[in-house]
Amino acid sequence: MRLVAYLDGDGAEAVGRVDGTRVHRLRGVDRIDRHLSPGALAGAAAEESVPLDGLTLLPVARPEKVFCVGLNYRSHIEETGRELPTYPVLFPKFASSLIGHGAPIALPPESAQVDYEAELAVVIGTPGRRIPREKALDHVLGYTICNDVTMRDFQYLTHQWMQGKAWDGATPLGPVLVTADELDPGALDIALRLNGRQLQSATTDRLIFDVPELIRVVSQFTRLETGDVILTGTPGGVGYRRDPQVFLADGDIVEVEISGIGTLRNTVRAEA
Amino acid sequence: MRLVAYLDGDGAEAVGRVDGTRVHRLRGVDRIDRHLSPGALAGAAAEESVPLDGLTLLPVARPEKVFCVGLNYRSHIEETGRELPTYPVLFPKFASSLIGHGAPIALPPESAQVDYEAELAVVIGTPGRRIPREKALDHVLGYTICNDVTMRDFQYLTHQWMQGKAWDGATPLGPVLVTADELDPGALDIALRLNGRQLQSATTDRLIFDVPELIRVVSQFTRLETGDVILTGTPGGVGYRRDPQVFLADGDIVEVEISGIGTLRNTVRAEA
Repeated sequence: MRLVAYLDGDGAEAVGRVDGTRVHRLRGVDRIDRHLSPGALAGAAAEESVPLDGLTLLPVARPEKVFCVGLNYRSHIEETGRELPTYPVLFPKFASSLIGHGAPIALPPESAQVDYEAELAVVIGTPGRRIPREKALDHVLGYTICNDVTMRDFQYLTHQWMQGKAWDGATPLGPVLVTADELDPGALDIALRLNGRQLQSATTDRLIFDVPELIRVVSQFTRLETGDVILTGTPGGVGYRRDPQVFLADGDIVEVEISGIGTLRNTVRAEA
Repeated sequence: MRLVAYLDGDGAEAVGRVDGTRVHRLRGVDRIDRHLSPGALAGAAAEESVPLDGLTLLPVARPEKVFCVGLNYRSHIEETGRELPTYPVLFPKFASSLIGHGAPIALPPESAQVDYEAELAVVIGTPGRRIPREKALDHVLGYTICNDVTMRDFQYLTHQWMQGKAWDGATPLGPVLVTADELDPGALDIALRLNGRQLQSATTDRLIFDVPELIRVVSQFTRLETGDVILTGTPGGVGYRRDPQVFLADGDIVEVEISGIGTLRNTVRAEA
């Protein structure tokens, strides 16, 4: 199943199943968040369909908690000059940073180093705490795409990265959630293009900590809820580590493509 | 006004105004969170009172976002051997880690280094983004006490601290919220006692980044919502930096006292 979150004609939140170029609204499902019973998705009646094209898409999940993983591709670790981690490098985003496919990435006047990061995003379905590795994928609702936009000048203000990662309205998530039964998270191609120029390219079999391991590690200390999101890390090629450096500017178009999911496209807009 | 959050006789959440040894329930106010209009608190009708003693207290705020500040007292920076920061060291907790006064601090079997941290907590009232320093205190609903319990062996697994700070059910917040009109956050005594032995003691005029500055910095990158919490950092004397080191054990009683607010008391309980 391929799901989108969008605004209906009355401006209310809705979730629908994509069927080609059409979207069937799922009755009684307003958002993928902690109040959704994962079983309700499969059982929801599909209502009349609307064209996908032209819908205002929302972040496809509404997490209570967003976990970012740093330094999870060897190619990115090499460009940062850091050591191979023995435990995932974890830091947060807040739900208020998330935007949908097609929404503008807010470029704040305070930062001069806004960077892109292509990432595979895992959305939790069945809640759980202390989930063993071998059961981890049973807790996944599905997968989507994230552009983990990062303000580098703020990220490195101290040794903790939160203030570089948590800017409101700057993190695209979508366009579609592909349910776990349809996708192997360990065998996907991921790429990022800035104004059509490819700047990142990798396969998810290169993840140092794979999806089951990330779920095991995070759920050890906190209960994962429906809609919670784990961003699995970005491969090499980020703008900050290029020579010359590349940063996002007003009007830029950023696309993140993952095989089997689709393309997440957003335009960068300077905040007024 | 002094506010508590508690369970009523039916097990529903309630918020009440403390009047000596009694609590007047505030009609229509279930919790201090982002759905509360700060004006609703002042206008809420007070219902019949119940005795404070014996109530099951809840975390006095239900934040969407919890910001921790590290290294904000000179005495704590000195014991860690770090440099004086020029920007607050920020990292998160999740709301699921919060517990009320009197609730057990969950001691997880995975950690052998569970430590205490006495802190003044700021609870946001009026939402805002990019709040200037001189208006910052207008956005404060009030102040309470936090024991920012930290799993040191997890905190230092990588250079990012989240997994040492975000354990479910381990962070006491309360017992009472004192509204901003009744307290000067820059002139409070703060102390921590473990089984009656005082291990931390400071005054909040020693904060490197004071409350208005923390609100300015955090609201620069994200909108602060009603109920959001900023933990202002801990003074020197944490268990990890003592010689010999001190860690929390099953049955320990930890008290954090702040002048003008009260005493937050919790017992440590090993998870089953």
